[in-house]
Amino acid sequence: MDDFNRRYPNACQVKVAWGDMDALQHVNNVAYFRYFEDARIEFFNREFPLTDMYQRGIGPVISENHASYRRPVVYPDTLLVGIYGSDIQEDRFTLHYEVFSTQQQRITTTGSSVGVMFNFAQGKKIPLPADLRAILQRLQQ
Amino acid sequence: MDDFNRRYPNACQVKVAWGDMDALQHVNNVAYFRYFEDARIEFFNREFPLTDMYQRGIGPVISENHASYRRPVVYPDTLLVGIYGSDIQEDRFTLHYEVFSTQQQRITTTGSSVGVMFNFAQGKKIPLPADLRAILQRLQQ
Amino acid sequence: MDDFNRRYPNACQVKVAWGDMDALQHVNNVAYFRYFEDARIEFFNREFPLTDMYQRGIGPVISENHASYRRPVVYPDTLLVGIYGSDIQEDRFTLHYEVFSTQQQRITTTGSSVGVMFNFAQGKKIPLPADLRAILQRLQQ
Amino acid sequence: MDDFNRRYPNACQVKVAWGDMDALQHVNNVAYFRYFEDARIEFFNREFPLTDMYQRGIGPVISENHASYRRPVVYPDTLLVGIYGSDIQEDRFTLHYEVFSTQQQRITTTGSSVGVMFNFAQGKKIPLPADLRAILQRLQQ
Repeated sequence: MDDFNRRYPNACQVKVAWGDMDALQHVNNVAYFRYFEDARIEFFNREFPLTDMYQRGIGPVISENHASYRRPVVYPDTLLVGIYGSDIQEDRFTLHYEVFSTQQQRITTTGSSVGVMFNFAQGKKIPLPADLRAILQRLQQ
Repeated sequence: MDDFNRRYPNACQVKVAWGDMDALQHVNNVAYFRYFEDARIEFFNREFPLTDMYQRGIGPVISENHASYRRPVVYPDTLLVGIYGSDIQEDRFTLHYEVFSTQQQRITTTGSSVGVMFNFAQGKKIPLPADLRAILQRLQQ
Repeated sequence: MDDFNRRYPNACQVKVAWGDMDALQHVNNVAYFRYFEDARIEFFNREFPLTDMYQRGIGPVISENHASYRRPVVYPDTLLVGIYGSDIQEDRFTLHYEVFSTQQQRITTTGSSVGVMFNFAQGKKIPLPADLRAILQRLQQ
Repeated sequence: MDDFNRRYPNACQVKVAWGDMDALQHVNNVAYFRYFEDARIEFFNREFPLTDMYQRGIGPVISENHASYRRPVVYPDTLLVGIYGSDIQEDRFTLHYEVFSTQQQRITTTGSSVGVMFNFAQGKKIPLPADLRAILQRLQQ
């Protein structure tokens, strides 16, 4: 955990909901993409008015999502989701997620998303705004 | 659609729920993994007592999930989810999903999952049962 | 079922998702409110551009929700959700739901919602539009 | 907030997820029942091995759910869910929820559930265990 906290001092905390478990009695595979989203949006919102930007009709949309499930997670648990960025291009970027279970004291799940900057009104891709680009650059490991 | 139906005569139908849309007013990226799951389980259950198998404490678990979002989907829509298999190994297999929007008359989303056969009580991987293997082999394109 | 179909010739069909079951291996209590919403919105949308209305910033919002769970539901099942209205007032109305399980051939769940007509931009209640009022009146039993 | 904290010193914290908002750009009516569940299960689990009990095939199931939505909630927000009990009977009890928005500094939502004690294997109601009864009695206001 010390090592995880060092690498991800700004990791987002996500409490596992009992209802995130499915009939197999562990957290359902779908739920992790919600955790990734929670972390991603909390992350951006800390330094950047992402939800305001969405209100103005622009913002990143997810064009790819990936998760790799290494170990099952069960309720109760609090997960730490660390994020780093890579592959920052003109109109898109990649985020990587590492999910650390405080119960299990290890990484249980990893994932990634490709975000593409979009103007919803015009329905087309636009360049990343400078401030978002700056945040992404700091997020690179 | 004719072409899609020819390729996937057994595609699963999924009605988009209004509540699957998020604040950006299109179907949220997370929802597609639920659609994939709906289709995957319906698919297996048609020929194979998957949910009974789960009751006995064995069955495939998802070890990887991927989605590629090509076009946004909005309510109302009915999606057809076609599935094919590949890479069938001793204890694992890959499923591929193609999601066809009947509103848009085109494929909006694709994805894939890796399933690993598991004995939950023993907490370890086991070989694919013969009947599941046979279904997967028929699912190859 | 004949009796249910006679009373609710326009009932909405909802396929239970495997993932709607929780760790107790029956459909989670929360999922039914999504089923009610699916049925409610499908119902309005058949005769009335509800989602267009929402785009223009007006529409009903839910001010009360109630469910009564009589019998557990398990996957696989297809539910029929019948709706009737009552208590139509200047700016609000009540909808009642009856959920019929095609597997169990009986009503498993009932519920109700109070909807209040709202102008989101102005943030205040407004009278029900005449066409919505007419639909609600037909929906009374 | 001081008043809320005094009345509910053990209120559960729930972070609103961006994805809990729907196309109307406020938290969807369904999500609150998940919040109620989060709070209810966290509450019991603090003093009582609820999830272990469920593993042994007994525990409370929800037979009624109600929510009253007073004010819309938007992301980002952290909600405090206070719980109190009432109407403790041989095999059932009522829980009441009050949801306090830390953004809005007021109660936005209230609700209640009826829980019925159940033996899942036998499929029948059983008396409340003494320790659960004791917790519920302390929860009365």
